[in-house]
Amino acid sequence: MTTSPSARLAESDFLRACRGEPTSRTPVWFMRQAGRHLPEYLKVREGVAMLDSCFTTDLVVEITMQPVRRYGVDAAIFFSDIVVPLKAIGVDLDIVPGTGPVIADPIRRRGQLDQLRRLEPDDVESIAAAARALVGELGGTPLIGFAGAPFTLASYLVEGGPSRDHRITKQLMYSQTGLWNDLLERLSHLAADFLRVQVEAGASAVQLFDSWAGALSPSDYETYVAPHSRRVLESVADLGVPRIHFGVGTGELLDQMGDVGADVVGVDWRVPLDRAIEKVGPHRSVQGNLDPTLLFAPADVLHTKAAAAIERGRGARGHVFNLGHGVLPQTDPDAVKGLVDFVHGYERV
Amino acid sequence: MTTSPSARLAESDFLRACRGEPTSRTPVWFMRQAGRHLPEYLKVREGVAMLDSCFTTDLVVEITMQPVRRYGVDAAIFFSDIVVPLKAIGVDLDIVPGTGPVIADPIRRRGQLDQLRRLEPDDVESIAAAARALVGELGGTPLIGFAGAPFTLASYLVEGGPSRDHRITKQLMYSQTGLWNDLLERLSHLAADFLRVQVEAGASAVQLFDSWAGALSPSDYETYVAPHSRRVLESVADLGVPRIHFGVGTGELLDQMGDVGADVVGVDWRVPLDRAIEKVGPHRSVQGNLDPTLLFAPADVLHTKAAAAIERGRGARGHVFNLGHGVLPQTDPDAVKGLVDFVHGYERV
Repeated sequence: MTTSPSARLAESDFLRACRGEPTSRTPVWFMRQAGRHLPEYLKVREGVAMLDSCFTTDLVVEITMQPVRRYGVDAAIFFSDIVVPLKAIGVDLDIVPGTGPVIADPIRRRGQLDQLRRLEPDDVESIAAAARALVGELGGTPLIGFAGAPFTLASYLVEGGPSRDHRITKQLMYSQTGLWNDLLERLSHLAADFLRVQVEAGASAVQLFDSWAGALSPSDYETYVAPHSRRVLESVADLGVPRIHFGVGTGELLDQMGDVGADVVGVDWRVPLDRAIEKVGPHRSVQGNLDPTLLFAPADVLHTKAAAAIERGRGARGHVFNLGHGVLPQTDPDAVKGLVDFVHGYERV
Repeated sequence: MTTSPSARLAESDFLRACRGEPTSRTPVWFMRQAGRHLPEYLKVREGVAMLDSCFTTDLVVEITMQPVRRYGVDAAIFFSDIVVPLKAIGVDLDIVPGTGPVIADPIRRRGQLDQLRRLEPDDVESIAAAARALVGELGGTPLIGFAGAPFTLASYLVEGGPSRDHRITKQLMYSQTGLWNDLLERLSHLAADFLRVQVEAGASAVQLFDSWAGALSPSDYETYVAPHSRRVLESVADLGVPRIHFGVGTGELLDQMGDVGADVVGVDWRVPLDRAIEKVGPHRSVQGNLDPTLLFAPADVLHTKAAAAIERGRGARGHVFNLGHGVLPQTDPDAVKGLVDFVHGYERV
């Protein structure tokens, strides 16, 4: 009996784990699996600026496929960057190698909000085309679309670039709360629009990255951030695809990040998965959570830790194996391949 | 009835809170209260390199006193840096403005360990002299001595400077565990020696900074770090002064950081104090934990959050008010003063 790609897709271990259904083995993919640690990535990116590559259909397809081909991971993640939708609506920014996103004119006044308009499909047609092409190439392997969450996008926009302390961002949040809420509302629409484009072009799950949410206390997260992240996730609920929500250093926020509308909560390596599962409760799956530096450890250490994560993950509604943060650029692809094989071969006892 | 400075010191609110005894009001001091946010600090540091200032008796005394004079805080913290004892035993390093500590020859091989010898009192005589002078100037205000914990010192030494991912450090930790343990054992002696010098010269409490411990999972902390931090804190137990233990992003480690021998556990702003108190248990005090960026917020927001921290802190054996991390260089001293006055004036209900 043959099954169609779409049927195989719907029954993939990755989507089943996201929905909390039994799986044949623990599904695994990695944040930043498509990226600088892969020689084939460095080769196709030669002479191409990061943002240009994100808007070039063929490159997005090729780079997204590279780790699927090499590792046999259970999901592809769309090659893009959280600032791509900002660029697409005309915000003057660049991604500077070694630094990260740099905003030409940091947003700190109400008069600057109008540039943050809704995203139209035409703004990202080359990206939607990549997603459509990928769905064909991927067959039964799900494609994850993603976007940056309002707080994390706001931090880049307000600070003008990456920040350790998010000082200017939080100052605006605390002292101009009306402006703050309007800024985050606009960013929530932008994130939701970008996720919708990707799903309508064929992505079968989405991940909302609130990379910097871990810089917030639970009460500040609740007051200033949660309503806006909730707006993003609720806006895409009608699409019927699993919604993953992830941030780093979010041990104290895991329940809240679930409650804003996630089906799967991503967990960094600081929180043992069994504790994370208690925090997110029985109605959500978890994703994670190996320390990315374990890919530099001897195989026996790596495997012991991976086994512990899988065992702890069994208490969850569903568990998608991943790192607790992105693959580091210095990582040896053979170590990644070894980890995928270990997870896939791990005996369910 | 007059009381001697030493009697007033022993009965100070700060030391009482550390010991879990009732206080007349919530004691308050701030990490990095002596530093770049103070114009009088910038003035005396003009043309003096950071490390030179740490070894200059008069400067250490003056800089340590500045926030005590300006703010009336309940404790002084010795002006120094966690790499000072490394410098004192001859490790080739510098503190580079805008970067932090830079190690000339990062330590990654066994043959490099011998330079990490015990600290002799003569190595830091100018520092001990500063502590002795401070005790006289401070009168009834306690002086806190401090040192960097083995893991945090090791990260600087192995990486060669500050690191976001501690990749090389963890690689050594996972793959050359014998070398790792020998390195951290040496650093534990160095930290303990440095704390002892400060206490013998008159400091009446110590704080062990494991700034980067939050980069570790609980299981890695237990295996690779806890025994060494425990050695530091147990080595100074005989001195009979309260031992504070602090790191950033340590929400999942608070119980362990208490268990290695702390009397007071420092808490960053990510963990609400009531949750932190549950984690550290009834036999330890807590210190913290306002987000340092709240000093940039309007007074009403700042005061609401400070009041919440004080109220939550009442569930603890003792509570020393502090920020959840150091005072940011851009902070307005008037905001700091306002916060001290608010904490001191807060009505115990």
